[in-house]
Amino acid sequence: MIQIAIMGFGTVGTGVAKVVAENARQIERKLGEPLQVKAILIRHFKDGPYRQLMTDDFKKIEEDGDIRVVVETIGGVEAAYAYTKRALAAGKHVVTANKQLVAEHGFELLSLARKKKVNYLFEASVGGGIPILHPLTQCMAANRIDEVYGILNGTSNYILTRMVRTGAFFSDALREAQAKGYAEADPTADVEGLDAGRKICILADLAFGRQVRPEDVPMEGIAKLSLRDVKIAQRAGYRIKLLGRAVRLPGGGRTAYVAPHFIPEENPMAGVEDVFNAIMVRGNATGDVMFYGRGAGELPTASACVADVMEALQSSPRREEIGWDEDSSGFEDPQDLETRYYFRIEGSLTDAAMAFGQVEVLSEDGETAFLTDPITGHDAVRQSHSLNVLACMRVLD
Amino acid sequence: MIQIAIMGFGTVGTGVAKVVAENARQIERKLGEPLQVKAILIRHFKDGPYRQLMTDDFKKIEEDGDIRVVVETIGGVEAAYAYTKRALAAGKHVVTANKQLVAEHGFELLSLARKKKVNYLFEASVGGGIPILHPLTQCMAANRIDEVYGILNGTSNYILTRMVRTGAFFSDALREAQAKGYAEADPTADVEGLDAGRKICILADLAFGRQVRPEDVPMEGIAKLSLRDVKIAQRAGYRIKLLGRAVRLPGGGRTAYVAPHFIPEENPMAGVEDVFNAIMVRGNATGDVMFYGRGAGELPTASACVADVMEALQSSPRREEIGWDEDSSGFEDPQDLETRYYFRIEGSLTDAAMAFGQVEVLSEDGETAFLTDPITGHDAVRQSHSLNVLACMRVLD
Repeated sequence: MIQIAIMGFGTVGTGVAKVVAENARQIERKLGEPLQVKAILIRHFKDGPYRQLMTDDFKKIEEDGDIRVVVETIGGVEAAYAYTKRALAAGKHVVTANKQLVAEHGFELLSLARKKKVNYLFEASVGGGIPILHPLTQCMAANRIDEVYGILNGTSNYILTRMVRTGAFFSDALREAQAKGYAEADPTADVEGLDAGRKICILADLAFGRQVRPEDVPMEGIAKLSLRDVKIAQRAGYRIKLLGRAVRLPGGGRTAYVAPHFIPEENPMAGVEDVFNAIMVRGNATGDVMFYGRGAGELPTASACVADVMEALQSSPRREEIGWDEDSSGFEDPQDLETRYYFRIEGSLTDAAMAFGQVEVLSEDGETAFLTDPITGHDAVRQSHSLNVLACMRVLD
Repeated sequence: MIQIAIMGFGTVGTGVAKVVAENARQIERKLGEPLQVKAILIRHFKDGPYRQLMTDDFKKIEEDGDIRVVVETIGGVEAAYAYTKRALAAGKHVVTANKQLVAEHGFELLSLARKKKVNYLFEASVGGGIPILHPLTQCMAANRIDEVYGILNGTSNYILTRMVRTGAFFSDALREAQAKGYAEADPTADVEGLDAGRKICILADLAFGRQVRPEDVPMEGIAKLSLRDVKIAQRAGYRIKLLGRAVRLPGGGRTAYVAPHFIPEENPMAGVEDVFNAIMVRGNATGDVMFYGRGAGELPTASACVADVMEALQSSPRREEIGWDEDSSGFEDPQDLETRYYFRIEGSLTDAAMAFGQVEVLSEDGETAFLTDPITGHDAVRQSHSLNVLACMRVLD
């Protein structure tokens, strides 16, 4: 019998208890013994089947030698950070879905875990139930990873899908997402790109092996996206998707950012709709590999946590060597990257041509929308300086 | 310094040597020490940079205590099977891309590896460079896997893509695939469904934890596929794809088969084109998760082998418990499964309606093409008994 504790009992925490109960047979078959939730840390007790496991005293978990793994589902940084450090220090494995904590303190917590010969695992922090961090760090370990990009925020993708399918404005699509429970009352972290930003930081950390500081990563969401651009994109054979993107640069540096992109219809990423997520990983040997599924939700995220619990219990101490270095040097401005750009301007094709030379016109209906040749972000800003720019987005190759 | 041997030096074997050399830095960073190819087993020596490593004497590898991992890329069963057993018996980890050997003798070789406290790993045997077996068995370990299906043969998918895009007949598309090196001179294993069949056996073994015998799995390829059906499918909003499919049945049994299917355009699988592969895994907690990428080729497949080499060296002996039971009971006839069926008949809509009741007509152009309601394979055969059937395929929901 292996005993674990759950800290926090919101959506993911409840899901963890459910998965442990519902899939007990599968889990026992793989682990060789049953898995049991012994304690749940929660501030305000709730009635229900787990009532007798609840405690508001972290010490009861910390000092219980029977508890070998702690699943942290508190979220945010403060309490989660403090309890995670204490649990690791007490020699317990810790598993989490907390992307903010991992993006901000992942390296430190991994180092502490290594020192204590336990595991700190966070597969569920990116892509919910989609296996991505383990495949990236283990299955693709023989590759040099050159790029990772993905649709990392299900709420934004749901809103974009509604805008394309029903011609809804952003504001209406957001209200619809809130009504369906896909967006929170305060949707800032989702629609302003913060959530995707934390996830691309974690992906970049693991793909390139060096710390990426969230404060260095420009994050632009979809809150200012115009329905007009969505329609122009669609007519021209593109879809607009919010992407987190991390790129290894030719000189050995690396960069990362979050922004809406024009994606050609032929790219499998363009067909990822509703609340689904997808992550593309480009290895120098495997080429492009894509991982697709539900990036959030109670059971998908919880099942990734429980798989990490099993992994933590079965893996050897050598396995944490995922190669994440504290050194954050070599992070460069994503504006250095060259891509084609989409512009919509209040002005004529002549204005566009004077600024960018030859362009590909997408629309001239009372305003001008066009694609440039590949240019850097700096050039995009500089050359459009004299234009009245209504919208500007990168185009994914 | 960790030393390995490669057995066989065709496409995949050569790729393994290349990946070890080209990605030496990435590999050393993760392993903590350099990886080196010490010996290559080959019958007819070839000139080139690896000439001095070549040997035709397996004993030199078997008895070399410095060689900790052997990568088997011989292919086929006989020699590969014998050498794999001897290498495992000698206490060496073995890694392979050999789907035929794994499908036919995987359980036995895994048991032998477990007894000798070494690993037998075969990520590259399904999906080439796409991580699928590790995600399925480890990352999704907290799920009950209910279904796995996928585009598992790149050659067939390339041919189907050409038929759709250029209206080529099967025979012309096959010749084109051969000219491009995507199909072998003898394309039987690819176009008759054998290759996909071996892969779905391995996926079913791991997903359901019980041996699936290849001889129990009906395998139908695309060799008899008509261009007419490809066109009818496309006009009706479907794509024809060759799928391997393994399903957990409600009563606890399981089944698997390979056959061409009608797939609705909205399914992300429908957009998988050219030589790309994709595998969908349905977990009871995660829902549908899809893995996409290059399913074959020198470097993708080789990099999966090298990742397995690294995994074998780092993992604890407990990790082989992937839950593959020798017991092959509970395998049921895939004809028991219920799906909609596509039929094209030499006959009228009245003939169709008399056989199947209400149907959805797709075409009535000198023949009749239609979709039935969900029925079992047995019913599809029985009810179409009196019809002149030109084509019959399952429809994926």
